[in-house]
This record gives sequence, structure tokens and C-alpha cells, in this order.
Amino acid sequence: MSERRRKHGRFRRLAHRPPVGSPPGTLVLPAAEAVPTTIRAITYGPERLAEQTLAAVSDLDRLEPDGLVTWIDVQGLGTLDLLRALGQRLGLHALTLADIVHVNQRAKLETYESHLFIVVRMPHFDDRLWTEQLSLIVGAGLVVTFQERAGDCFDPVRERLRQNKSRIRGQGADYLAYALLDALIDSYFPLLERYGEALDAMEQQVVEAPGADHIARIHGLKRDMLELRRALWPMRELMSQLLREDVAFIGAGTRPFLRDCADHVFQLMDVVEIDREVASSLIDLHLSSVSMRMNEIMKVLTIIATIFIPLGFIAGVYGMNFDRAASPFNMPELDWYLGYPFALGLMLAVALGLLAFFRRKGWLGARHRPDPPKPEAR
Amino acid sequence: MSERRRKHGRFRRLAHRPPVGSPPGTLVLPAAEAVPTTIRAITYGPERLAEQTLAAVSDLDRLEPDGLVTWIDVQGLGTLDLLRALGQRLGLHALTLADIVHVNQRAKLETYESHLFIVVRMPHFDDRLWTEQLSLIVGAGLVVTFQERAGDCFDPVRERLRQNKSRIRGQGADYLAYALLDALIDSYFPLLERYGEALDAMEQQVVEAPGADHIARIHGLKRDMLELRRALWPMRELMSQLLREDVAFIGAGTRPFLRDCADHVFQLMDVVEIDREVASSLIDLHLSSVSMRMNEIMKVLTIIATIFIPLGFIAGVYGMNFDRAASPFNMPELDWYLGYPFALGLMLAVALGLLAFFRRKGWLGARHRPDPPKPEAR
Amino acid sequence: MSERRRKHGRFRRLAHRPPVGSPPGTLVLPAAEAVPTTIRAITYGPERLAEQTLAAVSDLDRLEPDGLVTWIDVQGLGTLDLLRALGQRLGLHALTLADIVHVNQRAKLETYESHLFIVVRMPHFDDRLWTEQLSLIVGAGLVVTFQERAGDCFDPVRERLRQNKSRIRGQGADYLAYALLDALIDSYFPLLERYGEALDAMEQQVVEAPGADHIARIHGLKRDMLELRRALWPMRELMSQLLREDVAFIGAGTRPFLRDCADHVFQLMDVVEIDREVASSLIDLHLSSVSMRMNEIMKVLTIIATIFIPLGFIAGVYGMNFDRAASPFNMPELDWYLGYPFALGLMLAVALGLLAFFRRKGWLGARHRPDPPKPEAR
Amino acid sequence: MSERRRKHGRFRRLAHRPPVGSPPGTLVLPAAEAVPTTIRAITYGPERLAEQTLAAVSDLDRLEPDGLVTWIDVQGLGTLDLLRALGQRLGLHALTLADIVHVNQRAKLETYESHLFIVVRMPHFDDRLWTEQLSLIVGAGLVVTFQERAGDCFDPVRERLRQNKSRIRGQGADYLAYALLDALIDSYFPLLERYGEALDAMEQQVVEAPGADHIARIHGLKRDMLELRRALWPMRELMSQLLREDVAFIGAGTRPFLRDCADHVFQLMDVVEIDREVASSLIDLHLSSVSMRMNEIMKVLTIIATIFIPLGFIAGVYGMNFDRAASPFNMPELDWYLGYPFALGLMLAVALGLLAFFRRKGWLGARHRPDPPKPEAR
Amino acid sequence: MSERRRKHGRFRRLAHRPPVGSPPGTLVLPAAEAVPTTIRAITYGPERLAEQTLAAVSDLDRLEPDGLVTWIDVQGLGTLDLLRALGQRLGLHALTLADIVHVNQRAKLETYESHLFIVVRMPHFDDRLWTEQLSLIVGAGLVVTFQERAGDCFDPVRERLRQNKSRIRGQGADYLAYALLDALIDSYFPLLERYGEALDAMEQQVVEAPGADHIARIHGLKRDMLELRRALWPMRELMSQLLREDVAFIGAGTRPFLRDCADHVFQLMDVVEIDREVASSLIDLHLSSVSMRMNEIMKVLTIIATIFIPLGFIAGVYGMNFDRAASPFNMPELDWYLGYPFALGLMLAVALGLLAFFRRKGWLGARHRPDPPKPEAR
Repeated sequence: MSERRRKHGRFRRLAHRPPVGSPPGTLVLPAAEAVPTTIRAITYGPERLAEQTLAAVSDLDRLEPDGLVTWIDVQGLGTLDLLRALGQRLGLHALTLADIVHVNQRAKLETYESHLFIVVRMPHFDDRLWTEQLSLIVGAGLVVTFQERAGDCFDPVRERLRQNKSRIRGQGADYLAYALLDALIDSYFPLLERYGEALDAMEQQVVEAPGADHIARIHGLKRDMLELRRALWPMRELMSQLLREDVAFIGAGTRPFLRDCADHVFQLMDVVEIDREVASSLIDLHLSSVSMRMNEIMKVLTIIATIFIPLGFIAGVYGMNFDRAASPFNMPELDWYLGYPFALGLMLAVALGLLAFFRRKGWLGARHRPDPPKPEAR
Repeated sequence: MSERRRKHGRFRRLAHRPPVGSPPGTLVLPAAEAVPTTIRAITYGPERLAEQTLAAVSDLDRLEPDGLVTWIDVQGLGTLDLLRALGQRLGLHALTLADIVHVNQRAKLETYESHLFIVVRMPHFDDRLWTEQLSLIVGAGLVVTFQERAGDCFDPVRERLRQNKSRIRGQGADYLAYALLDALIDSYFPLLERYGEALDAMEQQVVEAPGADHIARIHGLKRDMLELRRALWPMRELMSQLLREDVAFIGAGTRPFLRDCADHVFQLMDVVEIDREVASSLIDLHLSSVSMRMNEIMKVLTIIATIFIPLGFIAGVYGMNFDRAASPFNMPELDWYLGYPFALGLMLAVALGLLAFFRRKGWLGARHRPDPPKPEAR
Repeated sequence: MSERRRKHGRFRRLAHRPPVGSPPGTLVLPAAEAVPTTIRAITYGPERLAEQTLAAVSDLDRLEPDGLVTWIDVQGLGTLDLLRALGQRLGLHALTLADIVHVNQRAKLETYESHLFIVVRMPHFDDRLWTEQLSLIVGAGLVVTFQERAGDCFDPVRERLRQNKSRIRGQGADYLAYALLDALIDSYFPLLERYGEALDAMEQQVVEAPGADHIARIHGLKRDMLELRRALWPMRELMSQLLREDVAFIGAGTRPFLRDCADHVFQLMDVVEIDREVASSLIDLHLSSVSMRMNEIMKVLTIIATIFIPLGFIAGVYGMNFDRAASPFNMPELDWYLGYPFALGLMLAVALGLLAFFRRKGWLGARHRPDPPKPEAR
Repeated sequence: MSERRRKHGRFRRLAHRPPVGSPPGTLVLPAAEAVPTTIRAITYGPERLAEQTLAAVSDLDRLEPDGLVTWIDVQGLGTLDLLRALGQRLGLHALTLADIVHVNQRAKLETYESHLFIVVRMPHFDDRLWTEQLSLIVGAGLVVTFQERAGDCFDPVRERLRQNKSRIRGQGADYLAYALLDALIDSYFPLLERYGEALDAMEQQVVEAPGADHIARIHGLKRDMLELRRALWPMRELMSQLLREDVAFIGAGTRPFLRDCADHVFQLMDVVEIDREVASSLIDLHLSSVSMRMNEIMKVLTIIATIFIPLGFIAGVYGMNFDRAASPFNMPELDWYLGYPFALGLMLAVALGLLAFFRRKGWLGARHRPDPPKPEAR
Repeated sequence: MSERRRKHGRFRRLAHRPPVGSPPGTLVLPAAEAVPTTIRAITYGPERLAEQTLAAVSDLDRLEPDGLVTWIDVQGLGTLDLLRALGQRLGLHALTLADIVHVNQRAKLETYESHLFIVVRMPHFDDRLWTEQLSLIVGAGLVVTFQERAGDCFDPVRERLRQNKSRIRGQGADYLAYALLDALIDSYFPLLERYGEALDAMEQQVVEAPGADHIARIHGLKRDMLELRRALWPMRELMSQLLREDVAFIGAGTRPFLRDCADHVFQLMDVVEIDREVASSLIDLHLSSVSMRMNEIMKVLTIIATIFIPLGFIAGVYGMNFDRAASPFNMPELDWYLGYPFALGLMLAVALGLLAFFRRKGWLGARHRPDPPKPEAR
């Protein structure tokens, strides 16, 4: 597990960085994980749509830009030369390119003369939660997206682009950027839905049969909530910056759609916060449940022991070697006709007495107890 | 329970959403839960009141709008075509209609040219707490409400409308919107009252006889408080937006009433916050109570065992097979005339000694203890 | 206790409300608790003072208002007709009157053309903490106070009014309002003083002899702190509104006195916050104290059992029926001259060995231990 | 301890107040604690310095004020008449004088026409932490300080004043006020240093040998941190008010020094916050440490018991009175030549088997375990 | 350990301060730790670079300042006279010099006419986390850095300076300051990476085999997180001050690079916050893990004891000395031909019955249990 985690989890958290003290803009990629870069371009307008895969940055010259929106879809960040060439061609700041390649940035918006630079985080759950960085360049008639690897939540958007009559074909680059952000934010919802169900199932299991493995899993769920909060929190700021400021490249018509996106981010934050508190509370629930259950076990076991120890003592007394012959005081029961039944009866009486005492104290069996209160309507 | 919960609880939390990447404004309804839409219209003025059920949106043309307020009361969101037609007729943004249909929105206020769009959440408790979305459109002489299903807290408002002399009949649409918001916010109060009583009853039961089922119930209460906070918190912002901004469609005369509403929301938040902290504290109380109680049991049981184990040992010694004949040192008591009473007495002495020791240590019986302190007046 | 609590505690928290959906300004009082309304009026100036009890609102006409301050002191909110008449006479908004009668409002300030409307909460502790609502109307030369029942902290203010030379007689209505607010805020101090002492005493008892009743009491103290915070927190806002805004009816000369009041509220909040944290910490202290104490008990009991079980085993061995006659290997000690003393000695040796082992491990008796560290001056 | 605490601790927290409802400015002192007032005056300029003790306020006339700074150093607040006279002479507001005498104010700054009124809190630790109120009046060429009793941290400032060439002699009253504030704030540092060491020592003791007394002491440390936070928090606001506003009586040259002071207060707050969290964490550490230690004990004791109970059972079986003569099935070992060694061997085998089982389970002895991880440099 | 800690940890926290009440600007150094001061100067421009070690401050005159940037690199703060001379030469305020020498300042920015004064904290981990103070003076063409001792994270910057073509050689002093800040902030990343791995490893160990030493180590990790937060938090403010204000000495071209730095500080704060919460959660995890494990042990041990105590009792009964000769009721099994096998069978039956009971209750062996839920994709 350590290896897997190292690969997808913590290790990604801060790595992909140049060595301390490197000049700004130094690009560094751990060779092991780097996915080779592929560049696809989609140019479209109300009437036309063209898709192609670019072999080199110079292929961009062949795209027809007149009145059309161009989406350059970069997948994989492993071919640094290609990325550098693309960055130069697009006029990206060296630090922007570094932010794109070193993929552990917080969500943010940076405004440049010729474009907006947006970083958001896309959630994935393959065996473990992790978030992929999506970098967006939004310029005039141009959207460029950079992903760490192939595989994203944008296929429905691509499909909508390919449909001739779809609304998106008639809109500008800002609307495409919105559609991508919206798909990305929406992809958090089914994930959180599944987390909610996992928490529910966990709650039921913890109450019914708490195990040692639950506590680590709850800890993991809480940790994932912290990661999601970390991914979503700066997205709130990003969305309100996109809305509040007089941001260039975002048309007035797209603004209501972005406001809808912002609403979704707020909804997500609400749910993440609640789930985090519920997970914390589950830890208490687990502790209490284990404690109640174990106490129940210990109680029964101890009661058995406690009943038989006095009985054993009585048997021990009658096993003492005081000889009836030596003194008339020496265990006269030994000579009684009903001495042995008497002894057994004595033991039975002690056992029943203890049981009755335990029962009266409420330590044994079920007492009638009122149901725990509920805020039911009256 | 899982099924029921799935129906009313978590599942509602985020569901009712179109698939990830759908175009904005896509309306999706899970067929299983969708309640067919019915539209009722109430038109009224100081003198007149007319109620009717609309079969189609075109029936709206038959309503007399001159100088009157119209309340279009939409219940059930299952007939998407009807809703789309109504939305078009009212000039709603596609996203507004989507917010109305996908019923897990946070409370919010959106201002449009021709109307205000308000989302609030209405609490229900049938077997489990859940909140229904109420969407309000407030325009000039027009209020439209959208509910997920029939059954709400607005019957008293309807009754007041039907009374000829009631104040509400002489007021505008903004006052009707206020009256609905007020009734909705007021409906939280009896619910919280019942939660408060449940917490009180829980506290008493937990102190007297803490059980395994309490802890899950307390967890549930805390979770409900988190849900209520989630429902109420954005309502605070909504109310202050309605008050602070120079909001259209809200007359100056209605503003004091809305301020009263806002006060109520603040009161509710206070109570929810306290109840949440009390519920958290109850978890500690439960843990302590269980612990005290179980310790009490273990103590008594262990004391019994601890007394009889030494006694058993003494009996065991006298049961050893050292023969008086073999050596004069071999258990001379066996030959004593009072050897057996001596042995029994020895056991009694040991038992009493141990009891006295335990009692002196304060582990047995009640010591006189001062009452726990109370901040009583002097 | 449940009954009492229902009367003074939770039940008051949110009740006294009209049914959900009532028209605004509907006044509702639970008949059981309503105290009949009595109205007393004090008119005073530097030279004169007149006190009278008013039978009807029309008696207000008989008061001489020229250059004098009038304090209308309303106690008990049970006679709704009288209150309605008074409200009309004073020109109160219907919602203001409702806020006065439905006595669970948060502290707040509302400014009207003809008066200020102030709500504050007065603490009481009779068997249980609860806060009474005091509503103040401050107008030109007029202060009206509404209390839920007779008995308040204003007698010293009344006394000062009756003294001819007192400063208050020469001041306006705003100064009277200040004097009342000051007395009310001051009445929190002795209460918090007693809470502080209760927490101190609790701490000492919890360390010395933690009991099952302590934990519920600490929970109660924490809960009271939450209630006090709930009462005081909005008073902070109220005071700063009174100070910051260009509030009418408050003279510049009274402002420094109100600033002093505000300082007191801040002091109170500080103390409540600390006491809340101390109460939370006491729960941990209690858990630890119980745990230490119970562990101590279990340890001693278990040690006793652990020593005697091996001894009992040895005695059991010598009680086995292997016959010396059957084999020379069969327990040769039985035939030894000193066999029995040897057996007893063996037992003693085992017991002492175990005791020594326990002692060396530090589980028995007191080891020399350094005092816990203290930040003493060097 | 309760008595001592009552004297220095809680009781001081809110007491020294006039009865509820007293007129503003009423001065009340608990006679028991009041220290008689002594007034010393230091007048100085670059060239001159004069120190004298004033018997009456009228002695102030004898001081030479031309071009010089006067520091009136009032120690003890027990002689109310003297204080009232001084207050009148200095033109203090009645409430200012009350704030000076009722010594539980929060740190604050109040600006008057003729002077600034500053309240700060000076820490003391004699047996227990408490903070003394220092009130400062800063006017033109005048600083007045009021302390509760003799003994402060200002002797080095006095010494610097007495040195002819010291910088402070050439500066104004604002610089003197700064020097006093600086000395007071600096006096928190060694105190917090000692608290830090106490926490360190506590941590070590708690890990090595947690005792019942530690938990109360940690609770006390946490409580002291809360008190220090309460003292320091408003000092932050005070300092930034002194810096930010265009405060009179503070020269531009003194401002950088005050900024330095403010930095120190921020540093102190940082440390107090960390220490508070560390103290909270120590409570968990203690609980865990006690739990680990006690579990260790219980485990060993239970293992001993668990091994000997089966052995005792075997011995008991061979002690049963089934007679070899009655049946050949009756314990044939009794007649074996090596029956007794066989029985002992059986017991040994059982004991060793259990030990091996326990060991294999890891409940006995030390397993090789990796060191807990550390973030060491690689 | 106490000694080591005293040296690097707590003791550094607040020490290095002049005695309480010293005049401002007093410089004090604990002789024991003071590292003698060495001053190195690097002057460079696009074409030239000169490095030299300065023996005295007057050597600064020999540096060629025309058009070049000068970096004065001061290491060790032990030679106060040299520092005072340098301060005078650079025109530093006495308090600035004091802040440089008393090395426990928070990160901050102070702006003076002729320079900026920046304090930041550089993390080190040699056996224990501590942070060194780096003070920067940024003037026109001048950067002065003050470190506590030799050894820093700036060697890559020095190397870049020495390379003829490097970008940094063509930039001004502000860019050098940025490069140093960037290197310092970057040096937090590998440290936090190692902390993250330590937390991961800790989590795994705690789940597998929680030990007494883990809890202290987790406490230590949490404490280090608090220290790092304390170091980083004010750096956030510092960075935003550098960015937001119209700060002198910082060119517009350097601003984007500083924004990148600020992003890194935010990323660090995110990670520190999450790690702090994870460390807190690990304490719960540890407690639960220890508790589960210990319960498991106690359960098995108690079950063994509980089974053998009743068996021992049965054996004890047959060991009673009731003689078959005295009464036919006296243990007839003793005379049965199969009496002994019957007795053993009885014991076996009891043992199996108890085992079956325990197993049915689920206290023994593994029941089939569903895996704890996981939010896996469906």
C-alpha cells in the first residue's frame, strides 16, 4: 500500500518541483510518471468543426482561426520541449509554464494581458482519492487545457461540440471555458455522493460490529475530506474572482453560467464540511461502540468467573483434610446422610443468590428501558 | 433503514442532477420520486379572491391581472414539459428553471430584470429530518412558488388570504412573499422545540441508563443539527441581501417585516449552534456515564472474586495430602479439636480483613461526599 | 426536574410564539405562565418625583410631562389588551409589540422615528439559569421598560431616583436608559462570580473524588455558559450599535457611560469564554480522574488475585491423590519431616517473589517521583 | 489552596466592583486587600532629575513643570480620598477613576481631550499566575501610573532615568510611556519562557511516569494560558490603536518604538496560542500514557492468572476422589510409576504452550519493532 | 534530550533578549551560542562578478558600486561591534539592528526611507525542527542578509550568480532578494515532504502495532506543525504586503515572481494545516488502535480463565471428602465404573458449551464481516 500511496497520494502532494534554489521557470519532471504529451486541437464555429492531432506546435498555423473558437487540448506533461514551444507560441510567462508542469498548484486565477490563466483540480478515485491539476488558458477565441494524463470528465463536452445544433457551438471561448469548468465541478458530485453513502454504510457497520479496520478507514475518509476541502476552498475564491472583478475575456452572457458554477462549488463545500464533521463524529461513535461491546463481553465473562469462584471455594472447604475422627467439629456434613446434597444445594443457593443480586443490579439480562428520544412530530 | 434513508436522506442531498458534462439547463428527474406537477393560481385584491387549478400554462391568460396579486402555486416537479412551458411564459433563465427542478440548492437570492429568484429550504420530519426546496419567483404583482410535493406550512397563509378583511389582502406581492417566507421560517421553531426536548430527554436517559442505542441517536441528532445549520446558514445571507441591497420588487413597507424574519433566522441559528454543541457534549456525557457505570460493575465483581480467591487458597492448603502421621509439622490443625472452626475462622478473618481494607480505601459502600457545586445565589 | 426545566428552561427558549403562519403582530401568551400586567410610572426632574400605579393606559394623561423624564415600568405581560392599548398610545409598530410579548428575542436595537427599541436579556438563577427579556423603549423624555414578571435588578436605580440630590435626577431619559442597562449588565457579574467559584469547587472535587453526578453537573455548567454566551453575544453588537451609529435619543454626554457599559459586556464575554473552555477541560479532567482512580482499584484487586492464584495452584498440587505408596516419585515432600513447612515456605517464596517483581516494576507502593513542574520564578 | 486561590485568582477576576445598580463612578474597595496609596513623583529633563514622595495632592504644586517631564507613580489603591483628589486635580472622568480603582479591566485605550487613558495588565507569578492592572494617564509632559501594590517591573526604567546621559532623559512623556509599556510587555517573556520549560518538563514526566497530579497541573497550565490570552488579546488591539489612529500625545519619533512593542505582543500571542494547544495535546498524551502503562500492568497480571488457572484445574482433577480401586478408568496415572512426574510435566507443557501462544501473539516480551518514523533529512 | 532541546528548541523560542526594562536597541547575545560574524560581499552585474570576504566594515569602500548589485552576506551574529558598525554604515534604525540580533522575530516587512527590512524564518531539521532567522535589507542596488550561522539554502543562488549567462546577473537587487526568498520558501517543501512521509509511516505503524513511543512522537509531530504554522503564517502577511502595497525597491518586473513565491507560501500553509489535523486524528487513531488491541488480548485471556474456572469447580466438587461409605448420596459417580470418564466428559461438555456460547455471541474467532465501505467508483 505504501508504494501505491507514494505513487498517487502524498508523493504527488508537493513533488514535481525543481531543486531548491533553481532559477524561476526551471521545468522538472520525474521521468517515471511523466506521460508523453499529445496535443489535439478542435476548431469550431456555428457551422464548422474540425478536430486534429498536432504533431508539432507549428501545426497550429494550419488551423483556421477566422471567427472560430479553438480548443487546444494538451494531455500528458512529459514532453517538455513540446510544452516549452507551445508556451512560447502562446506567449506564456515562464512561471505560468512552470505552474502548468509542476502540478500541485492550488486553484487560482491569474490575469495577463493576452489571456487568463486558471488552475483547478479535477478529482479522481482509483483505489485512492487524488486530484489532477487542470490548467486553462483562456484568450480571445482560444482555450488551452493542460492535463496530467489522458482520461477526463470532458467527453460529454466534446460530444456536445460535435453536435451541429448545440448551443455551445454558437458561443465564444468563454462559454467553452465555462462548460469545461462546469463539467469538472460537476464531477465532484457523484464522488461526494459515494462518500456520503460510504459514511452511511460505515455508520451502520460501526454501530453493529465495530472492527479494528473501521477506524483506519474512517481516518482515511476524514483525510480525504481534508484533501477535498483543500482542493475546493481556493476554487471558491477563484469563482468569485471570475465573477466579481471586471475580468477580461469573460463575456456578460457567460457570467450567469459561472454564477451557477460558483453555487455548485458552495454546495460542494457545504457537503464536504458536513462530511468532515460526520467523519470526526464517527470516530467517537466507533470508540463508544467498541467500548459498549467489549464491556458487554467482559461483563458476562466476569460474571461467570465471579459465580464459580465462590462455588469453587465451597468445594475446596469440603476438600479439606479435617478428619471426622479427629474432632466432632470437623465438617459434620461429611457424616450427614444428606451432607452431599446439602453441599450441592448450598452451592446452588450461592449461585442463585449471586445471579439474583446481579439481576437486581441490572447487570444481567435486559431491563425494560424506554426508547431513546426522537424529535418526532406530535 | 438504509432504504428509507436513501429515499429521504443522503440520497436527496446531491442527487436530482443531470449527468456530468450536460449542457446547462438540462432538466433531469428521477422518475421514481417525481410527483406530477399541479398548478394552482390564486388572484386577489382587497375586494376579490379567485382560486383555480390550471390544466395548462395557457390558462394563465384567463386570470385577471388588473390591480390584483397573482400567486401561482406549483406543487410537484414531475411534469417537466409543464414546467418548461411555465418557465418560458414567466421568462425564466434556463439555469433558474434548472435550479428549481434540481432541488438541492442552497438558499439564495438572484435578481433578474423582471423578477427576484429566491430559494429557501423547508424542514420536514417524517421519520427522519429532511428539507424540501421552495423556490420563489417574486415579480410585479406576481409570486410563483415551486414545491417538490404537496403538503406545506402555507395553509394558514391561504386561510388568511381567503378572509375578506385580512391585512394581507390589501398588500402587494412582496407582502405575500414575506408571509410565505415567514411561515416557512416559523415552521423551524416547533421542530427545534422538539429537538430541544429530545436532547433534554436524552440527557436524562444517558445519565440514568446509558445504552448502546443512545450513542447512535446522539450522533443522529448532531448530524441533523449539521443539516439544519447547512439549511439555515445561507438563509442568513439571503435575508440580509433582501434587507441591505436596494432590491427591486420589495416595497419599503414590507422591509420591517422582513427584518423580523431575519431576526427569526438569527434566533434559529443561535439555537442550532447551541444544540449542536450540546449534542457534542452529550457524546462525552454518554462515554463518561457508560464508563462510570461499567466501572461500578467491574469493581463489585472483582471484589467478590478477590475475596474468595484467598479463601480458596486457604481451603486448598488444608486439602493438601501432608499426612499427620508422617511428621508433626504437617498441618497440626487437622488434629486440633477446634481445628476446623479455626480454619473457618481464619477464612472469615481474612474475608473481613479484606472487606475492611476495601472499605477504608473507599472502594466499597458509599462515603459521605459533598454535593457537586452549583452557582446558587447566596 | 423535567417539569421544572420545562417551565424555566428549554420550554421558554423558543415558545411564546403564535402558531406557524399567523399574521405578523399576532400576540399569543401561554395562559399558564402569564403574569398579569401592572404599569407603574415614575416622573421626575431635578426638583420633583412622582410615582404612581396606572390602572389604565388613559391614566398616562394625568402625568405631567413638562421638562420631566417619564419612566413607564411595565411588569408582567399577561394582560394583552392593556399592552395593546399601551402600544397604540406609544405608537409602537405591531412587530415591536409582538417582540415585546414573545419573550425569546435576541438582544437588539431597532431605530424608529419616534423611539429606539432595545431588547436585552436579564439573567436569573433560581434553581436553574434562565434569562428574562427586558424590552426598552427610549423616546424623547420617555423610557418604557417591559419585563416578564415582577422582580428585577433595578431597585438601586429606583432608590437613586428617589434621592433628591442624585445625579440621575438631573439627567435625561437616555441617562435613565443607560442606568437601567448598566444595572442589568452589572447583574451578570455576581452570577459569573458564583459560576467561577462553582467551577473552582468542581475542579477540586473532581480531582479528589470524581462521581457520576459531577459529569452531568459539568455538562450543565457548560450548557449554562452556552446560554450566557447566547445572551451576551448579541449584546456586544447592540452596545456597539448604540455607540457607533449616530443614534438618535442618545445624548453625547451619555455616550462615555455607554462605552463603559460596552467595556463591561466585553469583560463578561471574556469570562464566559474562559469558563466555557474551563468547563470543557473539566470533562477531560473528570474522565482522567475517574480513570486514574478506577485503575488504582483494579490494580490492587488484580494484584491480590494474581498472587493467590499461583499459591492456590501449589496447594492444589499437594492435594493431588498420587500415593507415596504407588511410586517413589509421587510427591516425596509428603514424607519429608519438614515437607509441610517446605510447602508453606515455597508458597511464601512465590508470594514474596511476585511482590518483589511487582514492586520492582513500580506497580506496588509509591515510587519516589518528582513533583510535576511549575513555572515558578527562579 | 482554595483560600489562596480565592485571594489571588478567581476572586480578583471580577470583584472590586460596586454593588449592582450603583451610580456610575462609585468607588468601592474591599478593605481586606487594599494597599494604602503612596504617590511618588519624578520630574526630569536632559539636565535635571528630582524624585520625591508626595504626602498630599497639593504637593504637586511644588513640582517644577517647565520643560520637564513629570512621572507620577501611584502605588496602592487603598486610600480612596487621595485618589479622588488626584483624579480631580488631573481632570479625570469619574468613570476613568472607577476603571483605575476597580482593577479588573481589559487592556484598552481611551482618548480624552487632555490625556490618553491606557489600561494594561502586568503578569505576576507568586505561587499562582495573576495579572495586575496598570493604568496609565499620558498627557502633555505628564505620565501617571496607577498600580495595585508596590513591586513592579519598572525599576530598570527608573534606573535609566537616573543616569544622566541616558536617551530617555532627553525624550518626552510619550517616550516614558513607551518605556513603561515596553518593560511591562517584556516582563511576559521570562514568564512564558518558564511556562515553556514547565510544559517541556511535564511532557517528559507524563511520558515516563504519568500521575494523578499531572492532569490537574496540565489543566492549570491550560487555564493559565487562557488567562494570559485574555490579558494579551486586547493588548493587541490597544497597540494597533496606538499605532494606527492619529493619536494625540504620541510623537512620530516614538511610533517606531511602539511598533516594536506591538511586534512583541504578537510574538507573545503566538507563543501563548501554541502553548495552549500543546497543553491541550498534553491531556491526550497523559490519557494515552496512563492507558498504555495500566494496560501493560493488567496484561502481565492477567497472563499470570491465566496460566495458573488451567494448571490449578489439572491439579484439581488429580485431587478428585475417584478411587483406583473402584474402576480401572479412575485416573490410571495415580498408579503409574512415573504418574506424578507425568502430571507435573503435563502442567509444565500446558504452561509452556500458553506462554508460547501468548508470545506468538505478541502479548509477551518485546517484539522487534521499527522505530517510530521521524522526518529526518535524507 | 532535555539539553539538546534546550539548545535548539524551546530555549531559542524567546531567548536572545536583553533584560526586562533595558533601553531599546540594547544588543545582547548569549556568549555560549554566538557564532563569530563573517561578512562576505558579492558585487555583480551582467558582465562582472567579484566575491570577497570583508575584515572590517570599511572594506565596503573598496567595492565598486557603479551599476552593480551588491550582496553583503553576513553569517554569525557573535561580533556585536562589527554588526553595530555595519548597521551605522547602512543607516539602520537601532531597533532594526536589535531585531536582527535578537533572532526570534516573526516574519515581517518594515519599510524605511532608504531600505526595506524583511524578516523571514528558515527551517532546519537537525535532530529536531527549528527555524533560523534570516534578516534582509533591500535597498537601491543593495541586498544585505543576516544569518545566525553558516550553512543555508542559498548555495544554488550563489552558483547561479557565478554563471556568466544566468538571468539573475542581469537583474537588480529586488530580483536577488526574490531569489533568496524563493530559495528559502522552497526549502520548506522537502521538509514537509518528509513530514508527510513520517505521518504516513506513523499511520501504518499505529494501525499495525501501536506503542507507547508513538504517542509522544505524534505529539512531537503536531507540535512541529504548530511551530511551522507559527513560522509560515506571518510570512503570508509579509508576502501580500510585498505584493499589495506600493512598496519601494521592488520593481514591477519582479512582482510576478513574488506572486509565485506567495503562491508557494499558501500551498505550504495548506499542507501544514492538513498535516496538523492528520496528526490530531492520529492521536485518536492510536488510542483506538491500542484499545482494540488490548481488548483483543484481554478477551482471549479472560475467555481462557472463564472456561477453566467452572472446570476447576467441578474438579473441586469431586475432590470433596464426602465418603461413599457415609451415605449413598455422596457422589455416587465415585463408585461408577465409568465415573471418572463421566466426570472428564462433564468437564469437556461444559468447556465445549461455553466455547459454543462464546462463539455464538461472536466473541471468539472471526465472524464473516463485510469489508468496511469505500467510496469506490461504480
